[in-house]
Amino acid sequence: MEESEILRVNVGGCLYCTTRSTLVKYPDSMLGVMFKGDIPSSKDLDGHYFIDRDGQMFRYVLNFCRSGKLCLPQQFSDFDLLENEADFYQIQPLITSITAARQHAMKENLEVHYIEVVEVRAGTTATMPSKNSRVKTILLGRKEDLVALPPHLVGGEASERLESKTGSQYVELEIYGSNVRIQLADFLSNNGWIIENSNLSSSSSSAKGQEISILCIEQSYRDRWKTYKLK
Amino acid sequence: MEESEILRVNVGGCLYCTTRSTLVKYPDSMLGVMFKGDIPSSKDLDGHYFIDRDGQMFRYVLNFCRSGKLCLPQQFSDFDLLENEADFYQIQPLITSITAARQHAMKENLEVHYIEVVEVRAGTTATMPSKNSRVKTILLGRKEDLVALPPHLVGGEASERLESKTGSQYVELEIYGSNVRIQLADFLSNNGWIIENSNLSSSSSSAKGQEISILCIEQSYRDRWKTYKLK
Amino acid sequence: MEESEILRVNVGGCLYCTTRSTLVKYPDSMLGVMFKGDIPSSKDLDGHYFIDRDGQMFRYVLNFCRSGKLCLPQQFSDFDLLENEADFYQIQPLITSITAARQHAMKENLEVHYIEVVEVRAGTTATMPSKNSRVKTILLGRKEDLVALPPHLVGGEASERLESKTGSQYVELEIYGSNVRIQLADFLSNNGWIIENSNLSSSSSSAKGQEISILCIEQSYRDRWKTYKLK
Amino acid sequence: MEESEILRVNVGGCLYCTTRSTLVKYPDSMLGVMFKGDIPSSKDLDGHYFIDRDGQMFRYVLNFCRSGKLCLPQQFSDFDLLENEADFYQIQPLITSITAARQHAMKENLEVHYIEVVEVRAGTTATMPSKNSRVKTILLGRKEDLVALPPHLVGGEASERLESKTGSQYVELEIYGSNVRIQLADFLSNNGWIIENSNLSSSSSSAKGQEISILCIEQSYRDRWKTYKLK
Amino acid sequence: MEESEILRVNVGGCLYCTTRSTLVKYPDSMLGVMFKGDIPSSKDLDGHYFIDRDGQMFRYVLNFCRSGKLCLPQQFSDFDLLENEADFYQIQPLITSITAARQHAMKENLEVHYIEVVEVRAGTTATMPSKNSRVKTILLGRKEDLVALPPHLVGGEASERLESKTGSQYVELEIYGSNVRIQLADFLSNNGWIIENSNLSSSSSSAKGQEISILCIEQSYRDRWKTYKLK
Repeated sequence: MEESEILRVNVGGCLYCTTRSTLVKYPDSMLGVMFKGDIPSSKDLDGHYFIDRDGQMFRYVLNFCRSGKLCLPQQFSDFDLLENEADFYQIQPLITSITAARQHAMKENLEVHYIEVVEVRAGTTATMPSKNSRVKTILLGRKEDLVALPPHLVGGEASERLESKTGSQYVELEIYGSNVRIQLADFLSNNGWIIENSNLSSSSSSAKGQEISILCIEQSYRDRWKTYKLK
Repeated sequence: MEESEILRVNVGGCLYCTTRSTLVKYPDSMLGVMFKGDIPSSKDLDGHYFIDRDGQMFRYVLNFCRSGKLCLPQQFSDFDLLENEADFYQIQPLITSITAARQHAMKENLEVHYIEVVEVRAGTTATMPSKNSRVKTILLGRKEDLVALPPHLVGGEASERLESKTGSQYVELEIYGSNVRIQLADFLSNNGWIIENSNLSSSSSSAKGQEISILCIEQSYRDRWKTYKLK
Repeated sequence: MEESEILRVNVGGCLYCTTRSTLVKYPDSMLGVMFKGDIPSSKDLDGHYFIDRDGQMFRYVLNFCRSGKLCLPQQFSDFDLLENEADFYQIQPLITSITAARQHAMKENLEVHYIEVVEVRAGTTATMPSKNSRVKTILLGRKEDLVALPPHLVGGEASERLESKTGSQYVELEIYGSNVRIQLADFLSNNGWIIENSNLSSSSSSAKGQEISILCIEQSYRDRWKTYKLK
Repeated sequence: MEESEILRVNVGGCLYCTTRSTLVKYPDSMLGVMFKGDIPSSKDLDGHYFIDRDGQMFRYVLNFCRSGKLCLPQQFSDFDLLENEADFYQIQPLITSITAARQHAMKENLEVHYIEVVEVRAGTTATMPSKNSRVKTILLGRKEDLVALPPHLVGGEASERLESKTGSQYVELEIYGSNVRIQLADFLSNNGWIIENSNLSSSSSSAKGQEISILCIEQSYRDRWKTYKLK
Repeated sequence: MEESEILRVNVGGCLYCTTRSTLVKYPDSMLGVMFKGDIPSSKDLDGHYFIDRDGQMFRYVLNFCRSGKLCLPQQFSDFDLLENEADFYQIQPLITSITAARQHAMKENLEVHYIEVVEVRAGTTATMPSKNSRVKTILLGRKEDLVALPPHLVGGEASERLESKTGSQYVELEIYGSNVRIQLADFLSNNGWIIENSNLSSSSSSAKGQEISILCIEQSYRDRWKTYKLK
């Protein structure tokens, strides 16, 4: 049983080439036992070792033995079959890696977090929406997420104010200044948050001015941002 | 006819390797009959068993014989051909599995359920949308879905109230307290519901205050959530 | 020329195995003519029949000869090449099947139908949106689509009323009762319609009540549903 | 150098089978020169012609030589590599076809056109949105696109009116009649336009009627449609 | 060690054909060292050079040696494995190219930029939304992005006005004239910007006219555009 010996392994009709040392990397696994020489092995007509299992999934099993890492394509979708095969070969670190990869792919161990950014602008027909209009921006979300926003966007004292709000996991934060919402949009979308939806609404009233009635407008923009965080 | 015998099977030009016992796993199927030795079999020029059918689909058929499980990739799309082949091989448990997998993929046995969450906030220009504004949250949906929401979100007595509403499968539920909507959003999206759309609208009126007229605003946020449930 | 003879066919470098009877299934096609023995055939160095065409597309051609059905993956996208090859082999039923499959994939023979569902709720600040508010639901769409909706959702006399509207393919239908819209949403999305967009708007006015002015609100929800129907 | 000779060509390890006449289809290309016999060719150990280039991309090169057409899958994404290989083989019509296919895939030679359809409905609480309400529909877009709409939808004299508007590429068109918007939606989505977004807004005022004040409502629906046109 | 020698290389069971000069293109890499003849090499039973690594990823490694360019499919997703293999072969320019390709695919070195286009139209029930209504269009975004818009859309003096606004990276710009928004939509979507969301809102008031009260309406359309720019 020379460790550097090059073997051809026929897995369900697919031919693989590797060394014996790679195959016995996990000596106590079913795969390791098969190639340590302790049990008689099947050989096909060409004299290659034969395993009656799926031929294509063995690629991931073999690469795992070579490098100790499970490398799957980003859109890998054959988890059922791969898990099935890993169960057969009984390589425990591989089974653990597949479960982790599946959970990651399925986002099973991730939870959704939301931040809502509402901008309220108020003014008259003449001034809206930009010139001389009053602007305030409100953030809603989990305290832990809002506290983590950079001071140059939410104001230097925002963290303190939020930390002092006890009793609820969810908080609201008011910020003054124009263009806060679009700066937050840039920041959030560049830091892993994706916009889920966005809305605009207007309400108005005619206020009696000196002589003529003036149309006073209040506009609200709402963006809802979403991200995935580890539970 | 030794059961552990390793056979090479040429299916439409694709070579597979397996044992005879795997091929006769379902002895009454067409595949079983072919390899039990009861009927004369075709062989190709290399002496391999020959089946004049699609070569690639046989992979799923063979894996089913090996493990008794139908393992398809998550985005598998070749159901027409696979069904065609399963019909030929007449492996009844495989046909049943394919039909089930197809229905699952097609969501044929699933139905859409909706929950709508409407948040209504009322206040004046100065207070909206966050400070001192009045907030109520209304849920609309099937009774069975609303009853299943956790009491810490919808209130301890919600289930009782809903159960008492008889006569309709669809109900509405009012909840008081701020940030209920965003907490529900977190909960629903972490429990298999996906947001389908979201809207914001405002309405207002100028109320006569002491001296000056005040702009009273009412804002409604509506989120519609969707999920798939077994019929 | 024995019909059950197993042949190896080298199509552009891909080796296929099949029987002569499969290849001459369409005797008048180019493929049939090639294997009926009427014209001398090309052979490669290994003595396999040789066709100087694309090797992979031949899989679909051969499966069509085996089963008489064109089975393509659901996301099959190589129509240009497949059509090119079918033109070469001149198997008329295959050409017809490819054209049909392409049209189906391209939705060339399908047309979009829309149904819009508008729900209008009216009430006061205190009652909206659920309690004691007035609700009407309007459906807009082709008469043929609205007539096909089940009576328990649109009312028993809806079909009659719609049929009596002559002169236009497009009609509107008013329904009273709460939660009609969400029940229609469940029904439509479970019957092949998909939601295309959804909107909410509010309008209001302050009405003079006894002593105080009351904010009257009207809210409109609009869902647009889309489906594909055969022309 | 017999033209009908069947050759095996080993391209980077992939074996292809074809005739010499196919390979010299473009005699002045690098590929043509290689197989006209003017320069000594590499052969591998099995005596097959050898080209030290990517094995899989050669499939498209060879099919192009066979049929003179570049047939790529609809979602083909390997343009960088294919261009690289076409550069090597120096088949000018192939290079031109790849550039065209890439531009088509990339929409580099296409430009986006928009049409907006705005429907304005006005009425009172009692009548809205369907019965006895006033409806007008406005189309905005490029003159060339609006002129091309069918007269039974936009009115017989629409083209004339639009043609008479000189000085701007972008025009607006008003149409009267109910259900115009939904008919246009059907027409546009069945003619290559896709809906990009859709909005609904309401505005209202309380008008003094005889005795009571009436809530007058104006609702606007806006759909924006998008298509790709050749520049 | 002849450089033009054609070698067969068995990489984990996949056979590749290439020349020795291609393999030693990067003489100091692990791959170069393996084929310069300085160290004894593994050979399989057929006498082919043997490397105990993933067979499919070697395609990209080999093509990189042939052309000096990393050509990956547009939706390539196997970066983990490819990086793993490049690490093994120690071809520094390849490692650099993979890192760059991954960053590009991941948009890690890109940042999101937003431009918002708000159109405000004001008029009365009779005139809205098109005839004789007052229209202004406001652009919000980074100064660098707005300055780069073409003068025929934003006005000749826009750049100057924007440049004079110091102190903030984010600016607002007002433009007068009808159909500016739809022309900007055409321009932006044809220059790499994609629309992220779009909203419409209305507000109104009843103004006392001569005899009757007139419903004055203000409508705002907001489009948010997004693009990716190099940091």
